[in-house]
Amino acid sequence: MTLHNFFNYVEVNCERFVEELRKLLRQPSVSAQDKGVKECALLLRKLMEESGIETRVIPLPEGQPVVYGEVKSKASKRTLLVYSHYDVQPPEPLNEWVNPPFEAEVRDGAIYARGASDSKGNIMAYVKAVEAFLKTVGDVPVNLKFLFEGEEEVSSTHLPGFIAQHKGMLEADAVVCCDGGMDPSGRPTIDLGLKGILYVELRCIGAGVDLHSSYAPLVKNPAWRILWALATVKSLDERITVEGWYDRVQPPSPAELQLLNEAPFNEEGIKKAFGLTTFLMNRSGSEAFKALICEPTCTICGFEAGYTGSGSKTVLPSTAMAKIDFRLVYDQSPSELLEKLKRHLVDRGFGDVEVVLIGFLEPSKTPLEAHVSQTVIKAAEKVYGVKPVVYPNAAGSGPDYLFTKRLGLASIWTGCAPPFSKAHAPNEFITIHHFVKGIMYAASIMYDFGSN
Amino acid sequence: MTLHNFFNYVEVNCERFVEELRKLLRQPSVSAQDKGVKECALLLRKLMEESGIETRVIPLPEGQPVVYGEVKSKASKRTLLVYSHYDVQPPEPLNEWVNPPFEAEVRDGAIYARGASDSKGNIMAYVKAVEAFLKTVGDVPVNLKFLFEGEEEVSSTHLPGFIAQHKGMLEADAVVCCDGGMDPSGRPTIDLGLKGILYVELRCIGAGVDLHSSYAPLVKNPAWRILWALATVKSLDERITVEGWYDRVQPPSPAELQLLNEAPFNEEGIKKAFGLTTFLMNRSGSEAFKALICEPTCTICGFEAGYTGSGSKTVLPSTAMAKIDFRLVYDQSPSELLEKLKRHLVDRGFGDVEVVLIGFLEPSKTPLEAHVSQTVIKAAEKVYGVKPVVYPNAAGSGPDYLFTKRLGLASIWTGCAPPFSKAHAPNEFITIHHFVKGIMYAASIMYDFGSN
Repeated sequence: MTLHNFFNYVEVNCERFVEELRKLLRQPSVSAQDKGVKECALLLRKLMEESGIETRVIPLPEGQPVVYGEVKSKASKRTLLVYSHYDVQPPEPLNEWVNPPFEAEVRDGAIYARGASDSKGNIMAYVKAVEAFLKTVGDVPVNLKFLFEGEEEVSSTHLPGFIAQHKGMLEADAVVCCDGGMDPSGRPTIDLGLKGILYVELRCIGAGVDLHSSYAPLVKNPAWRILWALATVKSLDERITVEGWYDRVQPPSPAELQLLNEAPFNEEGIKKAFGLTTFLMNRSGSEAFKALICEPTCTICGFEAGYTGSGSKTVLPSTAMAKIDFRLVYDQSPSELLEKLKRHLVDRGFGDVEVVLIGFLEPSKTPLEAHVSQTVIKAAEKVYGVKPVVYPNAAGSGPDYLFTKRLGLASIWTGCAPPFSKAHAPNEFITIHHFVKGIMYAASIMYDFGSN
Repeated sequence: MTLHNFFNYVEVNCERFVEELRKLLRQPSVSAQDKGVKECALLLRKLMEESGIETRVIPLPEGQPVVYGEVKSKASKRTLLVYSHYDVQPPEPLNEWVNPPFEAEVRDGAIYARGASDSKGNIMAYVKAVEAFLKTVGDVPVNLKFLFEGEEEVSSTHLPGFIAQHKGMLEADAVVCCDGGMDPSGRPTIDLGLKGILYVELRCIGAGVDLHSSYAPLVKNPAWRILWALATVKSLDERITVEGWYDRVQPPSPAELQLLNEAPFNEEGIKKAFGLTTFLMNRSGSEAFKALICEPTCTICGFEAGYTGSGSKTVLPSTAMAKIDFRLVYDQSPSELLEKLKRHLVDRGFGDVEVVLIGFLEPSKTPLEAHVSQTVIKAAEKVYGVKPVVYPNAAGSGPDYLFTKRLGLASIWTGCAPPFSKAHAPNEFITIHHFVKGIMYAASIMYDFGSN
């Protein structure tokens, strides 16, 4: 089987494919605002079924529905589970959009819409690849299972439960998470792993009411308590000082270090974009890049106490709160570290500082030598004519561990979004060129994974 | 001269005096909201002139006007400068008032209004005492200068400049700051000193924009910077760890310790009111009271960074800010300590944390043996029939140093407000009984200070 007819079909039907993607983009699905998500699930099912995918919308009692589809292959015994999300980030600020975010206008060969690159363009690339296979070959080259969730932009809250309840249904040989795209130079990127996360709130309460600060010699200040508590959690050298925090950290393997060395790191570009003259701790070059990819972190994402308006208010706050995000690397355990953090605070005399778990994701990775990793790397090179950038790990986090640890599957993250596609920002877009390339990329992954 | 005719005059004219106070209370003068302050100054001048006080409204280029009045005495060479403020706190929350805050309703023998006890009741007590003297004796028993400012509730911003420019006009033998009132048991209170204050903002800037927290290994987090900086400023034992912070602290003298021992300290009442089971550092009894009155403090009044809404947002904030109030005791110097704080942060490696001065007041005190202290103590005992509570120092701060240090005058703080008068809270009130007693108290102070 060659893909000649397939390519031809995509070319001939390209305009219709674009219209179908625009249809999906015109349906808002903002999970953070519960805006149109359920309607979008129904529309996506319709588009999938019209493409030959047997699809169900599976409602979740407290969450947004999962859109689940299957296509059986006559030619292959292998099964690929394709994960993505049909929900999108809030489109605000609206006044910065050249065209409204849910009109999906086409300008200069690109579709501008919230979700265009993250990740409805990716979803439709896979869906249209299936259609093209079925219409030209009469079969798909691999058994396909599609798991499209509606809550990725709100931390995939209900995905762990869903996956725990549908292990049988989700049986497969590997997972491709179709999300992401090209790096600034236009090379496709592939993530073999993701950091985990432990997100907590520290809360402390003092007096029953905000007091005049003249009472400071008598009354506990919860802002000071949280401040002192946090000062025992991370030292000035960015080292997390909770006992045992690094016990399970696996340093990068020689193969992973090799990948890091091969990956470009646009140090000056990042500095310029963020308005920085230096990186933290004067890191630079490969040391900075390695820290970005391989280091656990502890970030104060928010701190709130007392009066923060203009001028002086002499208030002794009655409450204080800090939001802390710990990024975890393989194979740190968020539940274990949550307990270590709680014990640490009690041991240091901060039993009055409550630790509230807000969310967590386990770190996850898939070996470079896994069949799916090798398949996707080769497919990327074939379709894009350039070696992909393979990261042993992403600086960010995601629900990858549900596939690797809960389902025991190799799982990689890759997508077809263009460089600088403004995911999460105004004027998000996907070029028609990148969308069509994405269909080819999906087809190549399916074909190679099913046959080799 | 006895005060018999005086008492009689007050009794006969009591109803009119109450109406005049209500008139003053019906005129809003909310300095924080610039609401009615200038109108109130004009009304106060009118009420003072009708009482026989030669009065001017002195406009300040950038602030609220000072109402300044004088009455010359034929009988006495001594001059008493009377300070108070005609501005009031914002009345919000309005829905908690039984009657609107600027209607000055009389219920059960008390006038309910914003400013009733803090401090228009105090002002009118002195003004009406003058009228009663002039109408009954044809003279006042001491030369009087009245300095009523319109910005006390917004930190007396322009008072230092005003006093510096009017030293000649304000020449006097002593100052009575008529503000305050009875303690919970109904005993009049007298403050011989006030703490100073140094109020600063710490500000730090990281990247040019809020970033995804996955960049934490590369980008400075200004919230961590301010947190670490502050952790070097005060230790867990409440000791301020900036070098030289306590150099100028004068421990309480034997006479001051004696006053502290004699003053009641309602430990259980404070705990109950504030919802506390213990005081800070397990302080109790005289130790707690001494700390309240005599200790320098460092209070986080506000801390703001990043995302503080519900749930998790993985953001690396681009800015952070903390508001810090240092209470100072005699004879700490705010300008000197500001420099020490700045130097401390630079020395500890926090040159990137900016220290912005928001406001300051120097600590101030007047000796117990000063003529005005002794006069007021005796007047209080005579009028209220009970020994006043004399504090060597207040836990709070005020512009007292302008009188003691800039004008070189002995200065004490005392007033006629009833116990629990709800200053700064909804349903503030003064009873008619306490207002009339306040006229007697003012008269006794004037009489005794002028004649003894």
